[in-house]
Amino acid sequence: MSRARVHNLFVSADGFAAGDHVTFEHPIGDAGALFARFDGRVIHGVQHITDAVTVDRALFSMWGQGIGAEIMGRRKFGPQTGPWPDDGWTGWWGDEPPFLTPCFVLTHHPREPLEFANGTSFHFVDASPAEALRMARDAAGGLDVRLGGGPSTVNEFLRADLVDVLHIVMVPVVLGRGVRVWDHLDGLEDRFAIESVSTESGLTHQLWNRKPRG
Amino acid sequence: MSRARVHNLFVSADGFAAGDHVTFEHPIGDAGALFARFDGRVIHGVQHITDAVTVDRALFSMWGQGIGAEIMGRRKFGPQTGPWPDDGWTGWWGDEPPFLTPCFVLTHHPREPLEFANGTSFHFVDASPAEALRMARDAAGGLDVRLGGGPSTVNEFLRADLVDVLHIVMVPVVLGRGVRVWDHLDGLEDRFAIESVSTESGLTHQLWNRKPRG
Repeated sequence: MSRARVHNLFVSADGFAAGDHVTFEHPIGDAGALFARFDGRVIHGVQHITDAVTVDRALFSMWGQGIGAEIMGRRKFGPQTGPWPDDGWTGWWGDEPPFLTPCFVLTHHPREPLEFANGTSFHFVDASPAEALRMARDAAGGLDVRLGGGPSTVNEFLRADLVDVLHIVMVPVVLGRGVRVWDHLDGLEDRFAIESVSTESGLTHQLWNRKPRG
Repeated sequence: MSRARVHNLFVSADGFAAGDHVTFEHPIGDAGALFARFDGRVIHGVQHITDAVTVDRALFSMWGQGIGAEIMGRRKFGPQTGPWPDDGWTGWWGDEPPFLTPCFVLTHHPREPLEFANGTSFHFVDASPAEALRMARDAAGGLDVRLGGGPSTVNEFLRADLVDVLHIVMVPVVLGRGVRVWDHLDGLEDRFAIESVSTESGLTHQLWNRKPRG
């Protein structure tokens, strides 16, 4: 079975998982405090760090495990809105996007796909969550599909009950503004078995596993 | 830097990490209680399970990350002692040993290496821990070396101060007998930064990271 998995979704005490104002200069907007304890080098395995192997890093490293495709919201790909400008934009990541798989970017403005030598490709699709998941599963070759965010995209997939594994990282900061994860999801916890663990860094990891749909 | 890493070393409350009596019929001897909560399918990633993604499984999954060679004691390879009998023994694992890399088996009785189609090979060497680690690093192609146990082998490498990362899983069982991990290591904790986390299964994971030797 190919699962739909969310990893490393950092959420503030007040329920925000991204900043309000994303610009070319500030890709994470005004939410930098959310990611202060994140070490992106471990997403493909703990061998990529020379620092200590910590529980946080071990949990972060699930991101890359057995993933055959990703789905992301348009704002994760770039700060533009509306029709695509002719600006040569190919994402935030330069020549080596870290995904290494096909990525489906949800947008109302389809455009030609982009392909990178390291196996990453971006496909721009105007699709519902269920349709996008079907496309991503077809592309994933039997592996799992990562729901890569941002928070609005995760929220949509949760509302459509399409998420199998949700790895939340609770960060003890209060942002006061930003993009919310939990809107219109009252009682969501009933559908999941949830495990929590807190680490010495002050982070709390929650693993939400969808109960059998019976 | 190629680190020497121990993963998923299950230790009882009284400090035993393997049973006393290993036979062909009982590869783990009388220590089955140690491994009751272990799910071996995750050692190459959480995509290999359809059960819940738990904190235990996430931590277990570090086993396969970025490892280029393993070192193991002879008893991990088989129950024989003394000169090798002509019994066709090729390890406990059948045609698909889970290692997928060269493995160096410490023995006073060298023999011809064994090679498997899945990338696993066994090399039988009469070597000190430092010499074995040098050979394994040469074979690891820049990746890390796993110290695969059993407990006596881990103990030897700890005494020689050759361990960079030690992932202990404390199991709340009392074995009363078996193979000890901690002998002759008084004050070992001074050389390491140690993080502990307990999970809902009742296991406690400890990550011991060697402090800079410098």
